[in-house]
Order: sequence, then C-alpha cells, then structure tokens
Amino acid sequence: MTKAVVAGVAMLPFGRHRESTLSDLGAEVVLGALSDAGLGWPDVQLMYCGVVGVSMTPGTGISAQLGQTGLPVINIDNASASGSSAFREGSLAVASGRVDVAVAVGVGKLNQSFGGGSVRPSSPEAREGNIRRMQGVMPPVGYFAMQTRRRMHDFGSTIEQFALVSVKNHKHASHNPFAQLQNELTVEEVVNARMIADPLTVPHCCPMGDGAAAAVVVSDEKARQLGAPPITVDASAFRTGSYENGSPSEAKTTHLTAQEAYTQAGLGPDDIDLVQIHDAFTVEEIEYCEQLGFCDVGEGERMVENGDTSIGGRIPFSTDGGLLARGHPLGPTGLAQVWETVQQLRGLSGPRQVAGARVGLVHMVGVGGVCLVHILKHS
Amino acid sequence: MTKAVVAGVAMLPFGRHRESTLSDLGAEVVLGALSDAGLGWPDVQLMYCGVVGVSMTPGTGISAQLGQTGLPVINIDNASASGSSAFREGSLAVASGRVDVAVAVGVGKLNQSFGGGSVRPSSPEAREGNIRRMQGVMPPVGYFAMQTRRRMHDFGSTIEQFALVSVKNHKHASHNPFAQLQNELTVEEVVNARMIADPLTVPHCCPMGDGAAAAVVVSDEKARQLGAPPITVDASAFRTGSYENGSPSEAKTTHLTAQEAYTQAGLGPDDIDLVQIHDAFTVEEIEYCEQLGFCDVGEGERMVENGDTSIGGRIPFSTDGGLLARGHPLGPTGLAQVWETVQQLRGLSGPRQVAGARVGLVHMVGVGGVCLVHILKHS
Repeated sequence: MTKAVVAGVAMLPFGRHRESTLSDLGAEVVLGALSDAGLGWPDVQLMYCGVVGVSMTPGTGISAQLGQTGLPVINIDNASASGSSAFREGSLAVASGRVDVAVAVGVGKLNQSFGGGSVRPSSPEAREGNIRRMQGVMPPVGYFAMQTRRRMHDFGSTIEQFALVSVKNHKHASHNPFAQLQNELTVEEVVNARMIADPLTVPHCCPMGDGAAAAVVVSDEKARQLGAPPITVDASAFRTGSYENGSPSEAKTTHLTAQEAYTQAGLGPDDIDLVQIHDAFTVEEIEYCEQLGFCDVGEGERMVENGDTSIGGRIPFSTDGGLLARGHPLGPTGLAQVWETVQQLRGLSGPRQVAGARVGLVHMVGVGGVCLVHILKHS
Repeated sequence: MTKAVVAGVAMLPFGRHRESTLSDLGAEVVLGALSDAGLGWPDVQLMYCGVVGVSMTPGTGISAQLGQTGLPVINIDNASASGSSAFREGSLAVASGRVDVAVAVGVGKLNQSFGGGSVRPSSPEAREGNIRRMQGVMPPVGYFAMQTRRRMHDFGSTIEQFALVSVKNHKHASHNPFAQLQNELTVEEVVNARMIADPLTVPHCCPMGDGAAAAVVVSDEKARQLGAPPITVDASAFRTGSYENGSPSEAKTTHLTAQEAYTQAGLGPDDIDLVQIHDAFTVEEIEYCEQLGFCDVGEGERMVENGDTSIGGRIPFSTDGGLLARGHPLGPTGLAQVWETVQQLRGLSGPRQVAGARVGLVHMVGVGGVCLVHILKHS
C-alpha cells in the first residue's frame, strides 16, 4: 500500500488581502508548497481546492494562472472543513495509487467575497433559518454560547476558565508571524470585551479574515526521490453527524471520528505530541480535549487551567494560535493546521516549537456536521 | 482492478420546486437511486454532492434527513460540471477499492438560491468582471454568442442551422416527462424569439431551473450480488483548460478530454451509440460533435441538418432534450445525463429509446475551463 507523504506546505499570513483575487492567493501558496517540496507546477497531477460560498471555481483560476497543464481540479465546499476535506481527498488519491503528486489548497476572503450563499427570503431554506433564529439559535455563535452555558450548568465552570483558552491561543500566536491576531490578552480583557452572544465576548470567537494555505502530498516512493522529510498521513478519518442537537453533538462526532483515526494509525491519545483543533469558540477546545481522549468529560476546563494544553504542557493545543488567533478564513484553515503540524514535526517552529514532536493530530469540524481527524507522523 | 458499476439512478423533473429545500430534493433522489439499485441508505459508505454557489453544505443536509450513519460527505462546486465531478469522484472511490457503495448526487434551485457567489463591488474579482463586461464578454452567453458569430464567419453557417439544435432537442424532450421544456419548436420560432446576445435568442440558451439527480455507483462484485445490469464506467477523463480565449478553447479541451476517455475505454467514436453533452447554447453541440470525433471541423452544422444527431440518426445527441430543453440547474445536470444514459443502456427509454444502445458518452464543461467525459457501457 502506498503511503501519502506531506512533502511541502505553504501559507500566507491570515488577515487582509484586499488587492488579490482568491486565485492570486491560491496560486502563491501552491507555488510556495511546491517549492518547499522541490517540485514544479507541471509535476502536479491533481488538485483539490477548499473554498466556501464562492461559485466561480477559484481552483481553476489557480491552474489558469500557473499554466494550463490540464490536470483535474475539484473545488470542495465543506464549510469550515473545506481545506481539511481537500487535504483528505488529495491524500487518499495518492494512497490509492491514483496519482503520485496531489495538491490541496484552500482560499478564503471573508472580508470581501463570502456572503453565506444567497438564499432568497421566500425560499424554504430562509423559512427554516427564521424558525431557528426565533429560537435564538444563530449559527454558529448561538450554538456555542448555549454549549458554554450548558457546561457552566453541568460542571460549575466559570467564564474565566473558557477565557483562558483565548489567552493561551493569543500567547501562542504572538510567536507566529502568520497569525491574524498576534497580540497577547489577559483573562480580564477577554471577559470585559464586547458581548457577542452571552456569555461569549469577542475574544471567545475567531476573527473573520482572508488567507490561503496549501500542502503537496506525494507517494512515499516519490518522497524518497525528493529527499523529503518522511511526514506520513497515518490516519484520515471523516464522519458526519449532527451539528444542531441540544447536547454538544459535534463533540460526540469528534469522539467517533478520533476513535476511527486512532484505529487507522494504530495509535492512541498518549502517542500524540500536539493537536490543532477547530477552536472557533473557546468552549470547543475544552470539549474536544475530552472527546479526543486527553481527559475525562468535565475535566477540560482544568486542562487549560493547568497549562496542559499550552506549549510546554502535556499536550499542546493550537500551537499556532488556532482559529481564535491565527484566524479562520474558512477555505484555508484546515491546511493552515497541516502547515503548522508539518513545521512542528520538522522542528522548524522556533519559539513555539514543541520539543521532540513526532506525531501531530489535526481536527476540524464544519457546519452541517462534518468532522475530520488526520494524524501526521514523522517516521 | 475493481470496476465501477452504475447500479441505480434517479432524478426529479427539472423545473420548479419552490417548496423544497436543496436537501429535500437531494434526499428524494438519493432514496430513489438506492431503491433502483436495491440498496438502502445505511449501505452507502461515501457521498459526493454537486452544488453551485451555496455554502450551507446541502450534502450533509441530505445525510441529516436520511439518517446520521456517519458516512463522509463532500460537497463539490465545479460550476456546471459539479454533478459530473461528483460522479467521477464516486466512481474513482469505488474503482480504487476505497468503498463498495458510493452515491453521487446533484442539487440546484436556480429559481431561489443561486446568486453566483457574493463578491463585493470593491473586490479585485469584481474589477476583473467589470473589465470583461466592458469588452462585451458576459459569461456565459457572451462567449457563446461570439463563438456562434465566429463559425458564421469561418464556415458560412446560418443562424437557422444553429436553431436546428434547439428544434431537435425540444423534439427529444417532448418524449421526456422529466424535461423542463416539453414543447416542440420550429426553426422560425427559435429565430424570431426574444434576443439575448446577438445572434442568440432565448431558445438558443438553456433555461434556469430547479432539480436533483443521483446515481449509485458500486463495485462490480457488489453489482453481481445485487443482480444489477452491468453498466460499467469504462472511462472517466477530466481535464482543465481555458474557457475564455478568443478561439473556442472549450472545444479544444473537449477534444483532449475525449481522446483521454477513448484511450481509457479502448474505444473510439465509432463505438459510441449515444451522447449527452453540455449544450447550454446551440453552438456547443456543433463544436463538440466535431471535437468528440464524430465529424470533421466545419461539418458540425451538417450533422444536425442531416438528422445525424437526432434519435434514429447516426449518433443521437442529448436524447433527453439536453441542457436546452431538459434543463440545467447546474448541480444535478451531469447526473441527469448519467440517468438518461443508464435508462437508454437498459432499454427503458420508451419513445426516445436509441435502438440497441450499448455504449453512451457523457460530456460536460464548466465555467473556469473544466471538462469531463465519461463512457458508460452495458457489458
């Protein structure tokens, strides 16, 4: 069986890229990732492009810019998990022997081009949305505000505990020149910031932004030819589940998906050295930390309080700042996670390096109830 | 090597489906295609959903309606070729041995939910669009109006010859209860209709509409267990190219993609019994007929004039009415083509049956310059 190896990665700083089209941003990171892998555009046999709510196929725009070699290009819109889905499809195409060199790229410009689709007010989709809004369920922040309240009720958690996730992520991001928010924050600043959906203030929520990231995935044989560090995709698990039940059902989906990933990789939570997760809201790190098997349910708050999920702690989460501080332009986010993991496994992360990191877990959820867990290993 | 077999198909009549969500439409055709295959929703291991310009992941909405079995669901937005791309990804996942049962579904509601993305006027994407519009290049109808004029200049073609494509397609659709436009038309009616982009009047252009279509793809071993008619995917070729050059470059991309498909299937144009093509505009049938190898360049007009591309003719095109009359709701269109081809190869097409059809070619292009050619064979 062929193994998929991540031979090259690249990303642009997340934030504002007003003067570039989505294709411009994508072309730049694709070239960057190829250069990192020691390959050129004509070597690419297949490309998946993660992008949300934009129909004018930026993936083909990238290939038009880089040269019309004729390769197949597929645009994937899986909400927040678009980039992760693109990475999975590229990895599986390589692992199945379909191609030797695949590119996964993700692009997003939330400042200019995302409108969440364009549903007419008269449509049944709009009516369903109105019913949810009447119930106070404004996705996504409404869900996570309710989940935060639920944990406060179930476990006696305090808002200061949730705020610590944002404080920790901003600290990690302060060492990441590609992060959208590189400022440090105190618990008091988080708690006293502008309210979005009670009890969540602004720093409990990830920022909007623009960005792009890409990964080049090659067969293990090709990786040997290139002399690439052997960072293999040892698990690619993908499950759908519910996003909207009263209980934190993404957490359940995360649990099931992680189990599948651990089985695929023949590893368990104790083997993981660092984690990148979907922490668009602070409560998410705490719930997923439990569901990924790093602590029991109800103990997530204590993990962040003890510094277990900080760099230098037992199992560092979101070493690049995560969605809360590195940013979340949707399409590229999952590939920024791969970028960070690969840099960490190569030992190239400078002041935010996790010492001796060999195995990284990458987690992403998306609206509609998709969850992906990848495990990357430096063999 | 596992072969991919199309074991079940279903579609809804194209036209208006105001009271259903995209997920409602998708769920209905997925169940229909599964029932056609003798399978149930829990048997499905993987689903690809083709949908354009809608970010709220209708694919996961379908799985939420039919039961949360946890299967991976990937939404693909490849413009007009979204459904075809979903079909290809499902077929390749089966052929690679990744899964035994995959579903490809496509959904679209152009009457309510498609807005062509949502690009702010200040964005570089919008500025690029404005430059094109100043040049008179309004995609897609502007391109095809210019291509029509170009053929009139190069080959002395008349608008009446192009009109014959629409007349023929409407005649085919008059026997298709799932077609959006089932009325017959005369050449005079086509030529004298309301002008859209000179020389193209309304019936030279496909209608907007709502619809859904799905196909169940299984391994050949699974197909034998099910007793499904052995309709195999003998070729799945996918190439990107330019959509916007002065010359009819989609035609060139079609030529290269078809060559790849013929090689994969070990077949040539003479082996094909019927063709479904991307005939959103009348000039397309004429150009693609040449590029698929059914006649020389400059002879496409004579093919339709002679009735060669009519049912009963040498190589029938768009036996269900094509995009021009069966309709083109974007997401599902490629899967409606698969539906028609499978019904024809099963000999179930009633008054529009192509006698003795064993091999069908399915062609699709999409904005941005993607082209797919599938060859389905009743072994």
